[in-house]
Amino acid sequence: MTESTDQNTANIGVVGLAVMGSNLARNLASRTGNTVAVYNRTRAKTDELLAAHPEAGFVPAFSYAEFAASLSTPRTAIIMVKAGAPTDAVIDDLLAVFEPGDIIVDGGNALFHDTIRREQAVRSTGVNFVGMGVSGGEEGALLGPSLMPGGSDESWVTLGPILQSIAAVAEDEPCVTHIGHDGAGHFVKMVHNGIEYADMQLIAEAYDLIRRGTGKTPAEIADVFAQWNAGELDSYLIEITAEVLRQTDAATGAPLVDVIVDQAGAKGTGGWTVQTAIDLGVPVSGIAEAVFARSLSSHPEQRAVSAGLPGPAPKAAVDDVDAFIEDVRLALFASKIVAYSQGFDEIRAGAAAYDWNIDLGAVAKIWRGGCIIRAQFLNRISDAYAAEPDLAVLLTAPFFVDALTRAQDAWRSVVAAAAASGIPSPAFSSSLAYYDGLRADRLPASLIQGQRDFFGAHTYRRTDREGTFHTLWSADRSEVSAQDTH
Amino acid sequence: MTESTDQNTANIGVVGLAVMGSNLARNLASRTGNTVAVYNRTRAKTDELLAAHPEAGFVPAFSYAEFAASLSTPRTAIIMVKAGAPTDAVIDDLLAVFEPGDIIVDGGNALFHDTIRREQAVRSTGVNFVGMGVSGGEEGALLGPSLMPGGSDESWVTLGPILQSIAAVAEDEPCVTHIGHDGAGHFVKMVHNGIEYADMQLIAEAYDLIRRGTGKTPAEIADVFAQWNAGELDSYLIEITAEVLRQTDAATGAPLVDVIVDQAGAKGTGGWTVQTAIDLGVPVSGIAEAVFARSLSSHPEQRAVSAGLPGPAPKAAVDDVDAFIEDVRLALFASKIVAYSQGFDEIRAGAAAYDWNIDLGAVAKIWRGGCIIRAQFLNRISDAYAAEPDLAVLLTAPFFVDALTRAQDAWRSVVAAAAASGIPSPAFSSSLAYYDGLRADRLPASLIQGQRDFFGAHTYRRTDREGTFHTLWSADRSEVSAQDTH
Repeated sequence: MTESTDQNTANIGVVGLAVMGSNLARNLASRTGNTVAVYNRTRAKTDELLAAHPEAGFVPAFSYAEFAASLSTPRTAIIMVKAGAPTDAVIDDLLAVFEPGDIIVDGGNALFHDTIRREQAVRSTGVNFVGMGVSGGEEGALLGPSLMPGGSDESWVTLGPILQSIAAVAEDEPCVTHIGHDGAGHFVKMVHNGIEYADMQLIAEAYDLIRRGTGKTPAEIADVFAQWNAGELDSYLIEITAEVLRQTDAATGAPLVDVIVDQAGAKGTGGWTVQTAIDLGVPVSGIAEAVFARSLSSHPEQRAVSAGLPGPAPKAAVDDVDAFIEDVRLALFASKIVAYSQGFDEIRAGAAAYDWNIDLGAVAKIWRGGCIIRAQFLNRISDAYAAEPDLAVLLTAPFFVDALTRAQDAWRSVVAAAAASGIPSPAFSSSLAYYDGLRADRLPASLIQGQRDFFGAHTYRRTDREGTFHTLWSADRSEVSAQDTH
Repeated sequence: MTESTDQNTANIGVVGLAVMGSNLARNLASRTGNTVAVYNRTRAKTDELLAAHPEAGFVPAFSYAEFAASLSTPRTAIIMVKAGAPTDAVIDDLLAVFEPGDIIVDGGNALFHDTIRREQAVRSTGVNFVGMGVSGGEEGALLGPSLMPGGSDESWVTLGPILQSIAAVAEDEPCVTHIGHDGAGHFVKMVHNGIEYADMQLIAEAYDLIRRGTGKTPAEIADVFAQWNAGELDSYLIEITAEVLRQTDAATGAPLVDVIVDQAGAKGTGGWTVQTAIDLGVPVSGIAEAVFARSLSSHPEQRAVSAGLPGPAPKAAVDDVDAFIEDVRLALFASKIVAYSQGFDEIRAGAAAYDWNIDLGAVAKIWRGGCIIRAQFLNRISDAYAAEPDLAVLLTAPFFVDALTRAQDAWRSVVAAAAASGIPSPAFSSSLAYYDGLRADRLPASLIQGQRDFFGAHTYRRTDREGTFHTLWSADRSEVSAQDTH
């Protein structure tokens, strides 16, 4: 290496210059006061970035030692490499050249358990470690992402102003907040993605119901979504749905949505959200149905052998198309409220389990810009937590109760229509069942407890007095007071 | 220790003499040809068991050395202690006194990942390790459980005849088979439990729908279940549901099911089934809804604040009670077929992922006796795999297609009625949505792929030619051929 690197001239560094890393580095460099050191394992990517963006004034490094030398202290580096082993390798390399008080930020899509583990390991060296969720994809990274940093309070002092300078801005507020310690940032990013899965599945079901229920073309349905986007459903996902549905395939002249193979891919974070919710005992049924709908779609061999399964007799198209579309809109809005309520329930439970002090209203606020689920609607969530920070169920906040009250008849009728006409609507119907379960005075869970006591002596509690009880099912069926020995 | 232990006189040993272990030991001792060594960490339990069951001819041991000395070779010991650290501790203790060729069986409820890890570690010492699912609870352990052993072929040679002697018997066949290597037995037991969760939830929903839909009393509904049990729903769970619903609480004179707190407990295996299915990309939505219905029920603080949420206007009771009940029966049967199909799909996927050679028909057969989901119905599953071992979707076998064809109108009408009248039926409706998704010609997953390409350049495939493609959404919206760089 013959390049000389300026000493201590950069206030922030980026390791990993694939598209997300390059864009984040360019974003950083474009903000007043930042000088950005960059490093990549293979030199070619660094050279490419420098050549393409001389305006950025990047300080290139070609070894970790150079990289460390180029940074003012406390050194602050954002890692943008693949989650898993590559991240661990870069952390080890940085630890070899960093000093106590420096800050390593992992901006990859790490599972929060890994972040907790890494934070603990790195902290023991005196270096700060921050797991940070970065939402908004390539464009967000370049122009302003929604940022969800975890890590220590100390690291936030240095990191906060830098992140505030590059984050998306929504209603004059930067879309970044210090989420909580160690894994909190990646946890919240995970749930963000789970909600995104649910939101996308709900939109897909709405589209399918309108298309099969009314016979409208994708372009006509694009108009419906564009209209919806002007109202209470206003959101990035509704907006781009209209764009996708309006797109005509140049090669065939068909709507693009009819040319795309109907097997949805997934990158795992939706599944993590559900797996984690199960560990936490939080019912995120809408998110789970969305994850499963994608995996069902991606088994063509199973779908092929199932194609001949009987469906209902064909139904006539709906009588009043506009009324039906309005019902679907209301069903979508109600189901969406459920999905977000379940997601925030998971964050609340995660914060309690991992001892993170998470401001749920602030989380809603930083999702208003930069990220995929950005929407007007998030202001209502932030309002709800401002009014009642310990809200046990988001959807019981007045604004949402009002929306659900308006929507519920339509919601019920759409779920019923989907069942009758054989149009799969797993997320719509699951959300409604969750809603009806939540508000039920009595649930048949008491029968399940009776069954469990019958076959496994698992005992039950009584509504009229304290204690646990067991019926001697195989003897005289009298009831005995029981220690829960199981 | 002054007790003298007979040398080499026992052909099988049991470690851990809580109720499951004691019962399994008694079961073993009651079969011709078995002499059973017993050991417990605290001596009192051993003394108790010996005093209570002199007829069993147990060979007691009060140290691991004595225990090993009392066993003929290859020594075979079944561990019946708590999953997790206690199991690991006992394995270590046994390894200190066992020799190559001996067999350690873990009959606890281990997660299959742990079993894979333990099998690998124990195998390296030359000792065989068998993770075995034991189903049927305390009574099953005593009188005949359904047994799901994994482990090596070598261990099965010794273990097979012993397990066959104690297993439940269904239609003259013992309810045990060598499931596959290492973790296969615990994996299959896990999915068994997941199916059990779904089956119980479906029964609970059927009960709730009938009760709220017709106003029948629990005792009257007990008659309905007893009648169902005489038909194609014939199963242990339907049978005991009738028993539970018929039970009157002595203290209050009320139906017991109305006295039991309606919060369902869970011991984790249902959740594992869902978490594992997500790893494997298998949609087990019915099982997931059952797991979530239990966790929803167990959040009284959330239910309390949700009690006032609006429901539909009260509906009149159903016109034709008998017809409605028959519809619910058909919906239950159809949903149950979906739950079992999803469960077997998970076993098939697990076998492929972990390289287990699992005979799915044999799995169905060993569940016909001893375990909680025992049912006539399992013969039809076994028939289906006998006819087509590589069946991609269980519910596409002729018997099930016939049943679904008969049931689907009723199923749709019950799901629609539940939605309209505000009775939560998450598992009924999820199962129907899965069915309709599976048989759909086109799914709106194509729209999801379009959205993903729009916001994340995740690319899509085309129905008309090979390759992956990306639309330049932010530029001229032309389509480019893409490497999947994401």
